[in-house]
Amino acid sequence: MRWWGWGDPGHPPALGQGMLRLLRDTVGTAQKPRPPVALARVKLAPAALPDGVRGELQALLGADGVREDHAERVAHAAGRGYPDLVRLRSGEPQGAPDAVVYPRTPAELRELLALCCKRSLAVVPFGGGTSVVGGVEPLKGEHAAVVALDMRHLADPVRIDGVSRIATVGAGMRAPALERRLMAHHLTLGHYPQSFEYVSLGGCAASGGAGQASTGYGRFAKLVVGMRATAPTGELAIAPHPASAAGPELGALLLGSEGTLAVIHELSLRVRAAPREQRYEGVFFADFTAGVDALRALAQDRTAPAVARLSDESETRIALAQADAAAGEREAEHAGWWANRSAALQARARNRAGRVYLRARGYGGGCLAIFGFEGEPAEVEHDHKRALETVRRHGGLALGSAPGEAWRRQRFAAPYLRDELLTHGVLVETLETATSWSNLLQLHRGVSTAIEDALRAQGTPGIVMCHVSHLYETGASLYFTLLARQREGAEIEQWRAVKRAAGEAIANGGGTISHHHGVGRDHRPWMAHEHGERGIDALRALKRELDPAGIMNPGKLLP
Amino acid sequence: MRWWGWGDPGHPPALGQGMLRLLRDTVGTAQKPRPPVALARVKLAPAALPDGVRGELQALLGADGVREDHAERVAHAAGRGYPDLVRLRSGEPQGAPDAVVYPRTPAELRELLALCCKRSLAVVPFGGGTSVVGGVEPLKGEHAAVVALDMRHLADPVRIDGVSRIATVGAGMRAPALERRLMAHHLTLGHYPQSFEYVSLGGCAASGGAGQASTGYGRFAKLVVGMRATAPTGELAIAPHPASAAGPELGALLLGSEGTLAVIHELSLRVRAAPREQRYEGVFFADFTAGVDALRALAQDRTAPAVARLSDESETRIALAQADAAAGEREAEHAGWWANRSAALQARARNRAGRVYLRARGYGGGCLAIFGFEGEPAEVEHDHKRALETVRRHGGLALGSAPGEAWRRQRFAAPYLRDELLTHGVLVETLETATSWSNLLQLHRGVSTAIEDALRAQGTPGIVMCHVSHLYETGASLYFTLLARQREGAEIEQWRAVKRAAGEAIANGGGTISHHHGVGRDHRPWMAHEHGERGIDALRALKRELDPAGIMNPGKLLP
Repeated sequence: MRWWGWGDPGHPPALGQGMLRLLRDTVGTAQKPRPPVALARVKLAPAALPDGVRGELQALLGADGVREDHAERVAHAAGRGYPDLVRLRSGEPQGAPDAVVYPRTPAELRELLALCCKRSLAVVPFGGGTSVVGGVEPLKGEHAAVVALDMRHLADPVRIDGVSRIATVGAGMRAPALERRLMAHHLTLGHYPQSFEYVSLGGCAASGGAGQASTGYGRFAKLVVGMRATAPTGELAIAPHPASAAGPELGALLLGSEGTLAVIHELSLRVRAAPREQRYEGVFFADFTAGVDALRALAQDRTAPAVARLSDESETRIALAQADAAAGEREAEHAGWWANRSAALQARARNRAGRVYLRARGYGGGCLAIFGFEGEPAEVEHDHKRALETVRRHGGLALGSAPGEAWRRQRFAAPYLRDELLTHGVLVETLETATSWSNLLQLHRGVSTAIEDALRAQGTPGIVMCHVSHLYETGASLYFTLLARQREGAEIEQWRAVKRAAGEAIANGGGTISHHHGVGRDHRPWMAHEHGERGIDALRALKRELDPAGIMNPGKLLP
Repeated sequence: MRWWGWGDPGHPPALGQGMLRLLRDTVGTAQKPRPPVALARVKLAPAALPDGVRGELQALLGADGVREDHAERVAHAAGRGYPDLVRLRSGEPQGAPDAVVYPRTPAELRELLALCCKRSLAVVPFGGGTSVVGGVEPLKGEHAAVVALDMRHLADPVRIDGVSRIATVGAGMRAPALERRLMAHHLTLGHYPQSFEYVSLGGCAASGGAGQASTGYGRFAKLVVGMRATAPTGELAIAPHPASAAGPELGALLLGSEGTLAVIHELSLRVRAAPREQRYEGVFFADFTAGVDALRALAQDRTAPAVARLSDESETRIALAQADAAAGEREAEHAGWWANRSAALQARARNRAGRVYLRARGYGGGCLAIFGFEGEPAEVEHDHKRALETVRRHGGLALGSAPGEAWRRQRFAAPYLRDELLTHGVLVETLETATSWSNLLQLHRGVSTAIEDALRAQGTPGIVMCHVSHLYETGASLYFTLLARQREGAEIEQWRAVKRAAGEAIANGGGTISHHHGVGRDHRPWMAHEHGERGIDALRALKRELDPAGIMNPGKLLP
């Protein structure tokens, strides 16, 4: 992964001239590109690992298992949230781990935590490093130093119980590696967050994530049937029973605990037969309300496809404009970020002719949805037929497969585009929530308005757009994207003001402060609102029990 | 509810002469009937509520809100497990609450818990009183006295959000009352435990239960989207977000906590459209293995009906024999207990002719299953067609609707029959577990054998039978029923020996100690095995935080 941004260093540029022009004409861009500094120019405080401690760590993990070099410290200095990237690119991360440690076995992990307790080393569990909420920020709290605990070597064993459809893996395994292993057995986990290409499975469990196909396969917590985790005080083992009434589900404490209680090192995951057919299609609704009603009907009839996402008017409008530009310049192949924001597709599919057709049918200002059906061919056929009946009942217009296929091709591309937007001085941030169906439209309006107002107050009026995805019988998630010109020299303050306004609008509007990004550093201010004082007390009591020295990921999750 | 047993005092006798003869010829029955003693002869220790405390309780709850009379104390002296009933019927319960208290509002509940802390009163939350694992046994632990906290008046408000399909109710509400309220909105909760007619919704949440249709509607924990609970240190509120990544799911701590941490007083529950069609049918499999394979295929294809239960050969054989007797004597209408053990039905449907037919087709020693499809007519048609394709692929024979309808009529009748069996000196107990599909047959054999051996060792060889129900993608539950002659005068010792043997076989065989009955008093010995020492430590830490005085349901759940 690029130290200053996302993904493969060899990835081709994703931002086309048409898109750039569109941004220049709307929110504005920097006068000249603002590339990241050179790696050598990233400023880090000297590594503060005491000599004696270094020797003890090396005795435990081997010389290779303890790294203090500049590149490795930078690579573990931050996650991939907007403020992380702003700071990294400017060469001024908020801090860096004093060392990066790489245990290879659960036994080493156990001894490592004991040593960290003894020597007062804060521990930041580090999987794929893809947190967008500051979940891996190397904060040392009250401790002598801080180490990033890189889980990459704890990726074995993989045991696949094909009869029970349970895959047991080391938590350091990356999501694509598991899918490759499962493919040989015609199985799939079905967990595809936007960070899919880099995310570790342990990170998914610890952060409470949800993949793009969670409506069909379930959010990550639903995929976890068993776990092993090591806390400073010992190991917790959650047996992979299909269900149990033997007291509270302790696994629920580890899911979403973000490394503040224990390090999850093994996961037993429910897997499914790999779908023999995948049918992704576009649907157009006259307006957001009609689309939301259709999604709700699908969810409550339990006929929703594996992927179901509906862009609001703003996201649809911008996407179509951008798609025009992209189509004009034949940049479509790399216009991925917009595609992933669940639009562009329709235009890529039918171009201007299709748009004229839609306008003629009265869908000029409407909303685009992407539906993805997965399963056995006969079932896909049946589910598709039923879902389209519901869509039609809500005035929806089926656009065929091209928009859906385009979305699939670009589903993991957004983070690449974000890097280029930063180069052009554009603030780009995403944030998300979930609420009940009866509150969804009101929360959508409230949060959109709050972000727009906050951007205006910063002197950088912007574009706010949103899609509904992740459907449940009782409600759904809302995923907001905002674009504005960066306030150069005040990027973090600008971001913080917007983030605060959005968070307040979510909390006061009855949403959860996060549906799948997690809490980390950025959402801590709303945790007491989310859980109440007694709820936080309960979490603190657990923390005291499992991590009495307070070494586990200090400064995250708990307010 | 009858103070000495189950249900409506006016319920007609359920045990036919044929069935009784069958038992006499197999396991043996008492020489003469052993009815319960008269209520007035039930021995209770004098109520030990200090005068000052009585006054304080009455000041808070009113004179009606504090009861110390014999009948009310007896009614709250035990749940409805086998040892509870043996003791009640003999007039010698292990104890009784010193008072029964009835708060009417959450505010009264809060003040009541504060008063109980101050005066060292142990608190046993009491919903329907249907626990079969000793969950409401009035143990006072180290405290001065013990009160049963009857939740019946905390049954309001009912708020139905039809858009989000969320019903919010007071936790003291009984399950049938909610279904009646929902019916007016064409909605259903779909939670039908065998205790349905008496169970409180708060009790379902606190004990981690699952209804007979959980394969379709989900176990109770899946139905709970929000909660309010009062702990001695304050209120916990779990907001009804459809999903959240804002830290660990604290609701999971309350679900299954069995009143040891807090009293759940309000629930927000996911409801569904009431099914417009219900199709219940019987299916016959050549053997248990074939039936289990079919159930697994249904679960993993996600085509399992709402109710899917498969009797093993033993349960099927006994049921057919009993059905013969019942049919001969025209007792079928009240042979409910057997019906509910998921058999009898096939014989009631087709009588001897049908059996001859089955034998002729090679199903002589086979296994009966009941499938219940619920939903919109078109979907029931589709699901039924798909499920029967799977059944046929596994050699199953469809028996039509009569067995299914018979099962439905008798689905809540078993506890009535149990009372009559006790009158005739028959030990009748049920216990249950769940495990992965790959371990299911082995665990079934292991537990069956352990119970048979334990009964033989008691000098009372018995009948052990089992059914699979509650299907999941990764595994299923096993529900065992055992019948034997009671060892008169040593009923509890006999039961304890069998229970211990079964529990050890479950724990050592990789099952959970309970799939849906809960832990209470009876399963505590296996909690450390289930959760490990660190898991128990975590639960204890939570307990210390929420209930520092340890007044909440002492002697339950935690080992």
